[in-house]
Amino acid sequence: MKTNPGNFFEDFRLGQLIRHATPRTVTAGDQSLYTALYGSRFAVQSSDAFAKAIGYPAAPVDDLLTFHIVFGKTVPDISLNAVANLGYAECRFLAPVYPGDTLSTVSEVIGLKENSNGKTGTVYVRSVGSNQRGDEVLSFVRWVMVRKRDEAAPPPETVVPELAKRVEPAGLGQACPMLDPAAWDSGLSGSPYLFGDFAAGEKIDHVDGMTVEEAEHQLATRLYQNTAKVHFNQHSESQGRFGRRLIYGGHVISLARALSFNGLANAFHIAAINGGRHVAPLFAGGTVYAWSEILETAELPGRSDVGALRILTRATRDLPCTDFPVADGTPDTPGVILELDYWALMVR
Amino acid sequence: MKTNPGNFFEDFRLGQLIRHATPRTVTAGDQSLYTALYGSRFAVQSSDAFAKAIGYPAAPVDDLLTFHIVFGKTVPDISLNAVANLGYAECRFLAPVYPGDTLSTVSEVIGLKENSNGKTGTVYVRSVGSNQRGDEVLSFVRWVMVRKRDEAAPPPETVVPELAKRVEPAGLGQACPMLDPAAWDSGLSGSPYLFGDFAAGEKIDHVDGMTVEEAEHQLATRLYQNTAKVHFNQHSESQGRFGRRLIYGGHVISLARALSFNGLANAFHIAAINGGRHVAPLFAGGTVYAWSEILETAELPGRSDVGALRILTRATRDLPCTDFPVADGTPDTPGVILELDYWALMVR
Amino acid sequence: MKTNPGNFFEDFRLGQLIRHATPRTVTAGDQSLYTALYGSRFAVQSSDAFAKAIGYPAAPVDDLLTFHIVFGKTVPDISLNAVANLGYAECRFLAPVYPGDTLSTVSEVIGLKENSNGKTGTVYVRSVGSNQRGDEVLSFVRWVMVRKRDEAAPPPETVVPELAKRVEPAGLGQACPMLDPAAWDSGLSGSPYLFGDFAAGEKIDHVDGMTVEEAEHQLATRLYQNTAKVHFNQHSESQGRFGRRLIYGGHVISLARALSFNGLANAFHIAAINGGRHVAPLFAGGTVYAWSEILETAELPGRSDVGALRILTRATRDLPCTDFPVADGTPDTPGVILELDYWALMVR
Repeated sequence: MKTNPGNFFEDFRLGQLIRHATPRTVTAGDQSLYTALYGSRFAVQSSDAFAKAIGYPAAPVDDLLTFHIVFGKTVPDISLNAVANLGYAECRFLAPVYPGDTLSTVSEVIGLKENSNGKTGTVYVRSVGSNQRGDEVLSFVRWVMVRKRDEAAPPPETVVPELAKRVEPAGLGQACPMLDPAAWDSGLSGSPYLFGDFAAGEKIDHVDGMTVEEAEHQLATRLYQNTAKVHFNQHSESQGRFGRRLIYGGHVISLARALSFNGLANAFHIAAINGGRHVAPLFAGGTVYAWSEILETAELPGRSDVGALRILTRATRDLPCTDFPVADGTPDTPGVILELDYWALMVR
Repeated sequence: MKTNPGNFFEDFRLGQLIRHATPRTVTAGDQSLYTALYGSRFAVQSSDAFAKAIGYPAAPVDDLLTFHIVFGKTVPDISLNAVANLGYAECRFLAPVYPGDTLSTVSEVIGLKENSNGKTGTVYVRSVGSNQRGDEVLSFVRWVMVRKRDEAAPPPETVVPELAKRVEPAGLGQACPMLDPAAWDSGLSGSPYLFGDFAAGEKIDHVDGMTVEEAEHQLATRLYQNTAKVHFNQHSESQGRFGRRLIYGGHVISLARALSFNGLANAFHIAAINGGRHVAPLFAGGTVYAWSEILETAELPGRSDVGALRILTRATRDLPCTDFPVADGTPDTPGVILELDYWALMVR
Repeated sequence: MKTNPGNFFEDFRLGQLIRHATPRTVTAGDQSLYTALYGSRFAVQSSDAFAKAIGYPAAPVDDLLTFHIVFGKTVPDISLNAVANLGYAECRFLAPVYPGDTLSTVSEVIGLKENSNGKTGTVYVRSVGSNQRGDEVLSFVRWVMVRKRDEAAPPPETVVPELAKRVEPAGLGQACPMLDPAAWDSGLSGSPYLFGDFAAGEKIDHVDGMTVEEAEHQLATRLYQNTAKVHFNQHSESQGRFGRRLIYGGHVISLARALSFNGLANAFHIAAINGGRHVAPLFAGGTVYAWSEILETAELPGRSDVGALRILTRATRDLPCTDFPVADGTPDTPGVILELDYWALMVR
């Protein structure tokens, strides 16, 4: 059979390296679409002039555009037969990505654990995105529950990798060149609040809401060349678990990040994602709101230009975040749909 | 509070200068999206080869793309708490914008008038968009009705600026380099009718209609980084005045301009907008038609290459323009939704 | 009248040359939108690095993007008053198109045949797309049934061109530079199956399905500056034959081609389209599936680097292709909507 059936649980081997198709040159066109899809307004990614003034050679593309493109490539090999995306960890941005860079992705199987039902298992992979010069631009671990093709296939040795609860501050900042904080123009960036103005425990309601249409999440997910069937096929999904197309979880992450501009306008760069959980699904017609909690602030070794905020952003569905809602554990309750724990950089 | 509450009427001061976030590098990707959103077919903006042949260094982006981007930046500071966008005037295009240019916007408060109800007031601002070299590319006045935060706040001294009913012909053409009319290829531009073929009083039905989808106007308005809540949030708008998302008025302007190609294909450049009025709202599912009336023709001092047509374009909703409908004053009547009075250039 | 009424049957003359508006510079933004609209994943068009490694100077744009842009220009002159698009033939890709190239189109009337009802006639045109250097990039014949303006107009002499059932292998490959097959990386391209692995008679179900939204096909068709009214105007179409907007047939072709990646990942270039038939219409909300049959394999004279597969791809509506459905002749049956007979190149 010449079509791709995807890998089943018993197809994965510990230590296996998987080179993913399709390499992708990121362009100004992708960045324009990203802006149109989410309304992102961070000045560094929006303006060559702003980026150059502070020390970038040009405006880098949005960090999450890089994430989605690197991630999208892994879908046909890792999660085509996935029952669930269980989590992310140790996601680090390692080099800036500029229009013209070509990204490709390699994954390594770093853990395997068959479930006691004998029908599924959890696969842990570390996926690394690199540019055309071989520089790593992004590295992250994700784990997914994958079906077995043959329930009689013997289980592999169980290996569950130890994953960091959070990326250490010393591991942050590689994708951010040394900046000139004096050149940071808070008028243009949209907020006077810089690194020193934030403290652990602070909560910020991002106020605005964004309703998602089917055409929007489909355009986005195809832009990332993510082929997961549940996002695109109403004919089959009408018979499926939800009766409708499920929106790519990364679309929700990007919406929450774009909404967070209102309150975190100077958090210009995502340096790392410590963990992420899609608490409940999102469907077209839903309106996404978001709020954030500052979990930690950290200085970066050897860097006096920028500091890091560890932020827990929660996105909700049809629920304004004035009261800072948290996941209540009942997935059918309209409410929190995303919890994203990440490090963002701000100038000091 | 670190989020932007927007400015209320009493926050504005006469003569106040407001530098707006976010600077934005315009790219070929933005122009592609603009084409996909409206189907614009003017040859100068569509083709580098055509533009170079007549005297541009490259194809400039659509004038209204520039307008929307410069305008979008003003929303968080000027009209976040607006009850209504009341009008535009003295809008002049001052320099061409090419992919790679970075636009930013500064507004000056030029008028203030509290309403007799003591709850709202009208704010007049002149907004100027500039490129990365500091050249002004666009200047326009708009006035909006803004809520007061505190009804007890004392009214400011009333100042209502005198605004020109129309931009003088001598003020037109700065954004158009000196052209070679002999190089204008009417076969490629789509029409044999040049400046001399139009006369005041002439009416043109643009024939075609375009139905708008929610995803389309949301993509457009986010592309312009316009953050007005009414365009994006069905969850809150379902409880609002219309029960649904309101389409950005600029989207209607761009649709009408694109439709006007059929009849005005050689009106390649918008030199100025004399005034604009959104007579009635547009919602997704509505079909936009348009017709134009030539109000004046004018020669430009010192320019033998191009002349200016003053055009009044009316857009309608679900109403073909065969009979040249005009606004009848009842906003609930499906009918005229836009009246736009502008100057366009044509080669002579 | 300054608007374009389109040409009616009696306006066409045998041998007539029609230069079409609007020239169009193709950009990276167009390619990004193409990817977002269809999810295309062919490595050559996706990655500058991949394309350069095998012998292209850069990644060319998708062949069908070129087709749609060249085709779109012909609509206002050829098919604005068309009752039906009857067929395509002898479509050959003659030179690669890169971002920055400007395309324009000229058509020649090569056949005319009035129908016996005296109300309509068939017009055959050969349309040639060229770039800014005058190099032909695409040539194809299509024939459309066009209304007469005046039924009393005398019929022209009947001339029906003889059209090739298929493009000869010797006529393939001009748009593909000489490649280095050893540099073809099957890991990155997404499939190990190369030219030698396919044989005539082979059938491939492309498995995946894609649901189409109104906003998507409208964005696409406007991107191509195709002005056919039936795609955009719900207000008029609600009174029309189908009661709704008809999706541009080329949108279906692009969806089928993108779906065919799953099974034909190495069929990197469309060298020619032998014929195409839109068996039934597609409307928004429909889900497109596809399957392909290999009709022939052919070596190309003088080329040891690539060979050609002649492929018959069928697209369906709301019908998975597991059982390889063929058109059953009843247009109202949900089922096959497209039959496309084309030549694709693969490295040997």
